[in-house]
Amino acid sequence: MSAIVVDDDRNLIVSDTEPTPTPAAGEVLVRVAAAGINRADLMQRQGLYPPPPGITDIMGMEISGTIAALGDGVDGPAVGDQVCALIAGGGYAQYAVVPVDQVLPIPAGVSLIDAAALPEVASTVWSTIVMDAGLTAGETLLIHGGGSGIGTHAIQVGKALGAKVVVTVGSAAKGQRCLDLGADVVINYREQDFAVEMAGQADVILDIMGGSYLSRNVDALAVGGRLVCIGMQGGFTGEVNVGALIAKRARIIGLNVRNRPLTGPGSKAEIVAAVAADEWPLVADGLIRPIISTTLPLAEAQAGQALLESADSVGKVLLLIPGADA
Amino acid sequence: MSAIVVDDDRNLIVSDTEPTPTPAAGEVLVRVAAAGINRADLMQRQGLYPPPPGITDIMGMEISGTIAALGDGVDGPAVGDQVCALIAGGGYAQYAVVPVDQVLPIPAGVSLIDAAALPEVASTVWSTIVMDAGLTAGETLLIHGGGSGIGTHAIQVGKALGAKVVVTVGSAAKGQRCLDLGADVVINYREQDFAVEMAGQADVILDIMGGSYLSRNVDALAVGGRLVCIGMQGGFTGEVNVGALIAKRARIIGLNVRNRPLTGPGSKAEIVAAVAADEWPLVADGLIRPIISTTLPLAEAQAGQALLESADSVGKVLLLIPGADA
Repeated sequence: MSAIVVDDDRNLIVSDTEPTPTPAAGEVLVRVAAAGINRADLMQRQGLYPPPPGITDIMGMEISGTIAALGDGVDGPAVGDQVCALIAGGGYAQYAVVPVDQVLPIPAGVSLIDAAALPEVASTVWSTIVMDAGLTAGETLLIHGGGSGIGTHAIQVGKALGAKVVVTVGSAAKGQRCLDLGADVVINYREQDFAVEMAGQADVILDIMGGSYLSRNVDALAVGGRLVCIGMQGGFTGEVNVGALIAKRARIIGLNVRNRPLTGPGSKAEIVAAVAADEWPLVADGLIRPIISTTLPLAEAQAGQALLESADSVGKVLLLIPGADA
Repeated sequence: MSAIVVDDDRNLIVSDTEPTPTPAAGEVLVRVAAAGINRADLMQRQGLYPPPPGITDIMGMEISGTIAALGDGVDGPAVGDQVCALIAGGGYAQYAVVPVDQVLPIPAGVSLIDAAALPEVASTVWSTIVMDAGLTAGETLLIHGGGSGIGTHAIQVGKALGAKVVVTVGSAAKGQRCLDLGADVVINYREQDFAVEMAGQADVILDIMGGSYLSRNVDALAVGGRLVCIGMQGGFTGEVNVGALIAKRARIIGLNVRNRPLTGPGSKAEIVAAVAADEWPLVADGLIRPIISTTLPLAEAQAGQALLESADSVGKVLLLIPGADA
């Protein structure tokens, strides 16, 4: 099959001779229609975020497509079903294998292609701000990188849950897009210090910056606040004032989706089931929709990653797989 | 009434002319038999930890004694009942007022005096490692300062819940006391680096050191681990590797009991109710008992605080109030 591989110079090239994967017991084979590009793919390409043991080196953590074959013991999905899925790797390809518990239906009202923009962001946002941080109506949610794939999704989830949503962005244009998506307040980090604007006011913070924002994120937390860290775009380490954390009864939570167990408490299966049960109805109601910046052919994966890295896009960048029904 | 007050030189002296407090609606007046000394009292004496608004400047966060009067609307406790209680201040005195939701029965098998050693440590330990960090049987609990009032109590709670308990201590004698209380492993921090010994192994850490231990505490956390910070004996700030926190899906939780709301979710009333319902039966069964280093007359409060600060004691230091029935 065709898939994107990384050459010796860390360039992304098409290989037409990759072996088509075979679904193991409990897995389905999906003929991929579209694949989402994620920040984690860029880290993986740089050698900084290897896939979990046993997972293909091919990048790509979310797909949509049509089920082409079933592994042993798979109950429920059938060959020919259109689905989207959260995967640990292998999305930049014509075919991908998926543990059946990570298969999601296409939400009502969303096209097969557009559905590729949802599994990773929905699993990440729902598992962090809802399942783990317990965001509730009336609370204030601060989202860093409001224009990102995660950010544009989190804005909609926050509003759907009745929270006040504040975002940080790096440009007025991105800020306007966030307001259009429902954000209540936009902070341009080039002009304002979010820690001053939000001092003691954020009940939940969804952070992608890591070390460089850590100290100021704690400043921004309210009493009982929860800082959820899911990225390190601003470096690994930062300083924490433990005294402030104690006085506020606040917490700092590190989370990832990719390295979770497949099943059991805190697993990918648990997250995917919650997304299907609790978030997909909000998508069907039109409260949450996929936000897509650009779709590119699979062969232009490198340009797609560059677009994501440039921070010029708002929402997701998708790769279209040649020959797939859409 | 008699009570301990702080003079201009921050010395603790007896005043025999303090006004006896009057119980407001929803409060009871307790004739104090004994009062526990806590680290927080030492901080308060230094001006670093003022009592919440509306609370007396008299130190003392836990007492035992006999109910002497009821405020309006108090239902349940009766004059003459022997009780212990969690208070926001005022324990170093002949009489103290207590919100009725913070009154605890004397656990079966514990004397009136000894019961003064329980309310603050039980509320702190139960609310942190059980209610918030969710310690479960088979998990590993790392306790810093194993010989302290909090530490000696947490060892017993951890063992009663079926956890493996590891403690850090500063002397072989304290280590032996911790082993006698049930600790499985003792680490002498003067000879070993706990972050090396426990790398990636601690499911829950109960920390009193704050900044100086922060980075190494994160090293010690297991996947899914919870670091609970309740003290800053090693300073306020420390460095956190957010990448490690994300990779481990670990969390850092700052907690205190004193500044919580009186009622509602996360309140003192909720904690005290859980302690009475869930921990007192373990005390009655002999699995948890008060660990008392020394009892001193009220007039020797300053010596009692010095003893606590010297780190020569194992367990709690209590003040006996003159004239009380015991």
